[in-house]
Amino acid sequence: MKSFKKRDFPVSNIRRFLEPGPIVLVSSAWKGRTNIMTMGWHMVMEFQPSLIGCYIWSNNHSFEMIRDSRECVINIPTQALIRQIVGIGNCSGADTDKFEKFRLTAETASRVEAPLIAQCYASFECKVIDVSMVPKYSLFVFEVVKAHAAATPKNPATVHYRGDGVFMLSGRNVSYRRYFKSENL
Amino acid sequence: MKSFKKRDFPVSNIRRFLEPGPIVLVSSAWKGRTNIMTMGWHMVMEFQPSLIGCYIWSNNHSFEMIRDSRECVINIPTQALIRQIVGIGNCSGADTDKFEKFRLTAETASRVEAPLIAQCYASFECKVIDVSMVPKYSLFVFEVVKAHAAATPKNPATVHYRGDGVFMLSGRNVSYRRYFKSENL
Repeated sequence: MKSFKKRDFPVSNIRRFLEPGPIVLVSSAWKGRTNIMTMGWHMVMEFQPSLIGCYIWSNNHSFEMIRDSRECVINIPTQALIRQIVGIGNCSGADTDKFEKFRLTAETASRVEAPLIAQCYASFECKVIDVSMVPKYSLFVFEVVKAHAAATPKNPATVHYRGDGVFMLSGRNVSYRRYFKSENL
Repeated sequence: MKSFKKRDFPVSNIRRFLEPGPIVLVSSAWKGRTNIMTMGWHMVMEFQPSLIGCYIWSNNHSFEMIRDSRECVINIPTQALIRQIVGIGNCSGADTDKFEKFRLTAETASRVEAPLIAQCYASFECKVIDVSMVPKYSLFVFEVVKAHAAATPKNPATVHYRGDGVFMLSGRNVSYRRYFKSENL
């Protein structure tokens, strides 16, 4: 499977990747083990600091790893990884090394212990900054402290989940920049 | 502009529309006036009750209308409304009747005072159920109390924002249902 050569990307502009709503793969590390989970419930919450809200169910093996390490990496997969996206959701990190099982490559991050996934075209290193909404809503607030993104292809096909086994694939990009008030861009 | 004939839709399954990450139009009503805002920062938070988290900046005219009325409608526009999506973000409800300016039709909702937008293909009537995260994160938690969706077309093109004036349009749908463990669908 193809790995992406990623470059530094400004953390304040990761909405470019997340606001369109793709499925993401969340990687974590704790006590010498790694894990990956598939996640579709997330939102951008602020540009600067760069904040993301993520729903992580307490039954997921990743829940405790992320809560205890207070870190993770949010990786954006392309359509080429759709079988892995499904498979990662079908098994548990409690008894499965998901990097090995799904032949994904763990790359060393720079600000967190959790690994980047080489086969994803963008990866955001995150620190947990607020767990106050976890008991009631399973909602973690992450700050993106370092971002990596492939320069090419510019907009690879991403995968957006509708439930019931159906994915919407991203389509073409169109600019309406000329119609925006500049302060709203 | 085309209006959609919408039918009742189960509130516990609105993830089908929101999880793929479209731009939405949020309509509100307060003291005899209505308003519409364009919103891209939202997430599904629970199936049952049907919860949605939404970022609404306090500078938006809709902020006080939604906070004070404790209601809104989240409407999903199609690609046909892309100029309205941009235009609605360019002006303020403080001095503009957006239904009139953008020639959108307000339909009476059944559980809230805020109107549905007839030209949107799905509309979710929402009650504000938690404002505790508003001061720190501008994050409202809504419960969807009634949902309406057009039966046809099944998956009209939706509009997903990347920032900088660029929209990603939704592409085709593919089913990987056969690869899912049934409890994960």
